[in-house]
Amino acid sequence: MIRVGIIGGTGYTGGELLRLLCMHPMAEVTVVTSRSQAGKPLEAIHPNLKGLMDLRFEDLDPAAIGDKCDVVFTAVPHGAAMSVVPGLVDAGLRVIDLSADYRLPAEVFERVYKKKHLDPRPNVYGLPELHAEEIKNATVVGNPGCYPTGAILAGAPLVRAGVVERIVFDSKSGISGAGQEPSETTHYPNVAENIRAYNITTHRHKAEIEQELGALSPNARFSFTPHVIPSVRGILTTAHVFVNRPMATEEVQSIYEEFYADKPFVRMNKPSLANVRGSNFCDISFEVDEGTDRIVVVSAIDNMVKGAAGQAIQNMNIMYGLDERTGIWMSGLPP
Amino acid sequence: MIRVGIIGGTGYTGGELLRLLCMHPMAEVTVVTSRSQAGKPLEAIHPNLKGLMDLRFEDLDPAAIGDKCDVVFTAVPHGAAMSVVPGLVDAGLRVIDLSADYRLPAEVFERVYKKKHLDPRPNVYGLPELHAEEIKNATVVGNPGCYPTGAILAGAPLVRAGVVERIVFDSKSGISGAGQEPSETTHYPNVAENIRAYNITTHRHKAEIEQELGALSPNARFSFTPHVIPSVRGILTTAHVFVNRPMATEEVQSIYEEFYADKPFVRMNKPSLANVRGSNFCDISFEVDEGTDRIVVVSAIDNMVKGAAGQAIQNMNIMYGLDERTGIWMSGLPP
Amino acid sequence: MIRVGIIGGTGYTGGELLRLLCMHPMAEVTVVTSRSQAGKPLEAIHPNLKGLMDLRFEDLDPAAIGDKCDVVFTAVPHGAAMSVVPGLVDAGLRVIDLSADYRLPAEVFERVYKKKHLDPRPNVYGLPELHAEEIKNATVVGNPGCYPTGAILAGAPLVRAGVVERIVFDSKSGISGAGQEPSETTHYPNVAENIRAYNITTHRHKAEIEQELGALSPNARFSFTPHVIPSVRGILTTAHVFVNRPMATEEVQSIYEEFYADKPFVRMNKPSLANVRGSNFCDISFEVDEGTDRIVVVSAIDNMVKGAAGQAIQNMNIMYGLDERTGIWMSGLPP
Amino acid sequence: MIRVGIIGGTGYTGGELLRLLCMHPMAEVTVVTSRSQAGKPLEAIHPNLKGLMDLRFEDLDPAAIGDKCDVVFTAVPHGAAMSVVPGLVDAGLRVIDLSADYRLPAEVFERVYKKKHLDPRPNVYGLPELHAEEIKNATVVGNPGCYPTGAILAGAPLVRAGVVERIVFDSKSGISGAGQEPSETTHYPNVAENIRAYNITTHRHKAEIEQELGALSPNARFSFTPHVIPSVRGILTTAHVFVNRPMATEEVQSIYEEFYADKPFVRMNKPSLANVRGSNFCDISFEVDEGTDRIVVVSAIDNMVKGAAGQAIQNMNIMYGLDERTGIWMSGLPP
Repeated sequence: MIRVGIIGGTGYTGGELLRLLCMHPMAEVTVVTSRSQAGKPLEAIHPNLKGLMDLRFEDLDPAAIGDKCDVVFTAVPHGAAMSVVPGLVDAGLRVIDLSADYRLPAEVFERVYKKKHLDPRPNVYGLPELHAEEIKNATVVGNPGCYPTGAILAGAPLVRAGVVERIVFDSKSGISGAGQEPSETTHYPNVAENIRAYNITTHRHKAEIEQELGALSPNARFSFTPHVIPSVRGILTTAHVFVNRPMATEEVQSIYEEFYADKPFVRMNKPSLANVRGSNFCDISFEVDEGTDRIVVVSAIDNMVKGAAGQAIQNMNIMYGLDERTGIWMSGLPP
Repeated sequence: MIRVGIIGGTGYTGGELLRLLCMHPMAEVTVVTSRSQAGKPLEAIHPNLKGLMDLRFEDLDPAAIGDKCDVVFTAVPHGAAMSVVPGLVDAGLRVIDLSADYRLPAEVFERVYKKKHLDPRPNVYGLPELHAEEIKNATVVGNPGCYPTGAILAGAPLVRAGVVERIVFDSKSGISGAGQEPSETTHYPNVAENIRAYNITTHRHKAEIEQELGALSPNARFSFTPHVIPSVRGILTTAHVFVNRPMATEEVQSIYEEFYADKPFVRMNKPSLANVRGSNFCDISFEVDEGTDRIVVVSAIDNMVKGAAGQAIQNMNIMYGLDERTGIWMSGLPP
Repeated sequence: MIRVGIIGGTGYTGGELLRLLCMHPMAEVTVVTSRSQAGKPLEAIHPNLKGLMDLRFEDLDPAAIGDKCDVVFTAVPHGAAMSVVPGLVDAGLRVIDLSADYRLPAEVFERVYKKKHLDPRPNVYGLPELHAEEIKNATVVGNPGCYPTGAILAGAPLVRAGVVERIVFDSKSGISGAGQEPSETTHYPNVAENIRAYNITTHRHKAEIEQELGALSPNARFSFTPHVIPSVRGILTTAHVFVNRPMATEEVQSIYEEFYADKPFVRMNKPSLANVRGSNFCDISFEVDEGTDRIVVVSAIDNMVKGAAGQAIQNMNIMYGLDERTGIWMSGLPP
Repeated sequence: MIRVGIIGGTGYTGGELLRLLCMHPMAEVTVVTSRSQAGKPLEAIHPNLKGLMDLRFEDLDPAAIGDKCDVVFTAVPHGAAMSVVPGLVDAGLRVIDLSADYRLPAEVFERVYKKKHLDPRPNVYGLPELHAEEIKNATVVGNPGCYPTGAILAGAPLVRAGVVERIVFDSKSGISGAGQEPSETTHYPNVAENIRAYNITTHRHKAEIEQELGALSPNARFSFTPHVIPSVRGILTTAHVFVNRPMATEEVQSIYEEFYADKPFVRMNKPSLANVRGSNFCDISFEVDEGTDRIVVVSAIDNMVKGAAGQAIQNMNIMYGLDERTGIWMSGLPP
């Protein structure tokens, strides 16, 4: 059994890790930390876990965690992870960080997040469909952002094929991405029966998209605009791909099938938030805009699973030599 | 033209008053107050009003308001109204108060709201279908609570007919009743695809229901349990009415038709939040549970209109001798 | 491994059985039938299963199914099950029927469903919390209706304690209970931001409630009114319980805790559709209406899991001597 | 008073025309036709109108309508309007057609809708912000599609300014655009908590966008992809505009303000479906993607009002020399 700790277990990401790890046959959660809830049972914050997991939140003590765990998931805010990760590494732990702190080279991080990086180290970008080899041996893995996961998986095959001039990613996310803290943004009357574009040209996730897709084709250009729709979970990404030569449907289909041939969590399947809800799948389809230079690729993920906790467990599986599907090989929850 | 002031114009109730008064042919809004937003144009808080109303929020100054208005709507929190209403009355204004402060006799208010009443005076309960005559000449009208409006209108005809032993009101409300302030209660992920019962046996609106229905039949008993459903506007009230003798559908139908014969805003119409959305109607239907002592009466209102701002304008119309429909005689907004 | 067949695998219930059985470590689905989709892969109807289950729908052939399965779930419409079950039993299969056909004695069924019963036999009501012993050895189990599951579990402890005079069940269901077939009832613009009461005094599920609770206390009376809310999954039942003597909170608490002491799927937990979504739990809480004879008990289930497919698998586990939690011991999916 | 007829009054568009015309001070509905509902009162289909409008559906009889009306709105399916409009024109009526039949030149219509046009005549495209002069004297006005209204208004100022190379319109619509007829597309469990792209490269509304924006700048290119979100009303259009030279925010702001200077229904206002719900406004804002050639323009309309019935009444007002705001100058309905 892999002994697992969760640093910051009260938020949505922590809760989702716990929900999924309840079902993992090779991992056991031994520590869950929370500064504010230390001493309380998990179910005080996550009543869905009542009866399933008999643990209490505890204070963060890296040395003690080093004794009780093999690997930790850090589910703390951007900027906070880099303060705690060094201590955890020193305690002999491997770390999968779900914040933005280890996704980008330190200098890019500092430019985008306008914050000094306290723990610069080579970043391992934990998108298993692109970086499984590096993840296998990593000490610290930076788990990808939710939008980048959906966008990169939608675009990578065509970008690597060298045919892409530009992609406009128009993404539509459920509101859970805004976190557990109530705000004007998450107020039901502001979300229901509505939709809004936000950070229209300036969302920080763009840096991850450019890093990963740019590595596959240095001259392609990428735009990104996110929206919030009246859904809790899920991101649908519409990638308007402009290509440099005419392409037939069959060719595009081959490119995607080949790229994802041995990637069990990416399916060529009509995207729908319902079909991936609660699961680690990324469903993708595309349509060639006949007579034009545009191909529209659409992807769907559950932002809390493939976009966060599920992908983190997929990374853990790879780091420990397990089949990457272990414990997370389940259907979505439609309807 | 009736010159109208709104005291506390930034919340949902204030916004709804403004939305409706834009369309009123005999009333003109001359003052809108807000302590926090004084100086800003209305559209800074209510962007839906852009282009329709060219006013700015101002500080509360009763004397100045006395010069510029004939009547004011006080849309401030429970407990705050009774601090400002005396000054407004002294300035010669008539007042329609949308808080709970003037709905109950002072001693009942103090017991229910656990607060000393600062302005005890005989209360005029502003439910026009029951109290039009008193409203006509009132200086201060206590505009009813949203739940009581739907519950009282559902139950009054049978209660007055003297056949009711007990009514269990099981109400389902949209979340706008919780107001504009974000909270855990209004957080989209907590509301969407969910429903919860709250204040299950202790909701303060029960006092209004008992006051009004109890006045029609002193021995009848009333229970009340509210729920929040994933809707913004509207309250559906299911009244499980237990009667003291068998009743046929025709008799019940007559009782309701007669009771509401000249009440234009109460319709015998299959209740649906959609059909009354944005409008001042209360739609009611019923079904006799054959072979039992139960009759189920169902009512639907828009909590922000018939349950608040629309009813307040209906009261204003009555106070100024206008047809009660003036300016609020419009269809709901389905779908 | 238990070899499992699903008769009628294209609807919501069939799909949910497949979703859950994918995760069951002791059961293997070997046959899924559908008259209309025979020959097609499961994923043509249930795209969420793509990659997870490699089967095709086939025609119903009881003899062949008898060779390939140990147990079948019949997920066909009311009235259709009783036509196919006898043949399946003759082929040596045990049957868990998810229609209404085997929940009630034949004469009650005929009165309520207005249909001649073609396979009268003593009914085993598959609510494990009440009937585990009978289920263990049953050949045919009638899996309970969704509303009765939530209502009976909410009321049974107090009813068996002999204190109940009457219960008014006011239930609020997600729309998935109406099935996969589009209709005016399920049309998004008619459901969203709305709520409606339906079959207000005449819903057929009342017969199950009366059968099960009446068996625990013959003189108690029960009323039942269902509503549809803008949710896909879940039923919240508000049970207004009228008791024949004053009861303190502690006494009621003891009654529930004792009744459900060794029933892992019933939790004393604040009810919320989110916390049970996708899971087999029934969460229950209550509140005593001080100074009155009313106790309000609230329960929450996922109508498709504890109200259908999950409970059916729980029954299968019991029939085959497994821990009843096997394969369905997972957390709900909040938010 | 303008005497108004509605041909095909049972659908969403017919219902919305009726809802709005109830409030129009200069128009009176005298005829509402429906083949299937002839003889029934309007409220049988539109219960929201109960008490407000005392008319019955009648059969379509052009000559009789010619006697009783001055103008008719044809709210019948695409392809059906061109069969009835000639007879209505012969009866001396002016016609505002809400189908697609009179929006495009006949040859374009035939190519896009794959149907012979039965009444080819020069089309007057009823978008008042672009064509008020032609509308004023038209006999037959083709009321624009919902998507084109939002897209054209978002793009026109920059296109006319000659700076646009290409626009990718990524539109998100409420489901009411799919009409009143239940289908798999509108089934609540398929829509709620979901989003889907459809007619990804082939939606027929693209022809209107190209016609209107192409007329302002012949060399610009346009792409269009629609989505359905879990909302009833409203369309948010995200226009990714690629320009041929760097532009500052101030310049873009001036272009929009000037273009819409005397157009009361277009507001430079942060787009939100809530703020325009039920109203005839189109709210627009934009953001320059610094350092790139992209400007993102976002528009919001209510598809049933500015995208259909409200715009049709705006056209009627212009045709009869009224202020275009008459009867439709009301606030949206947030929240």
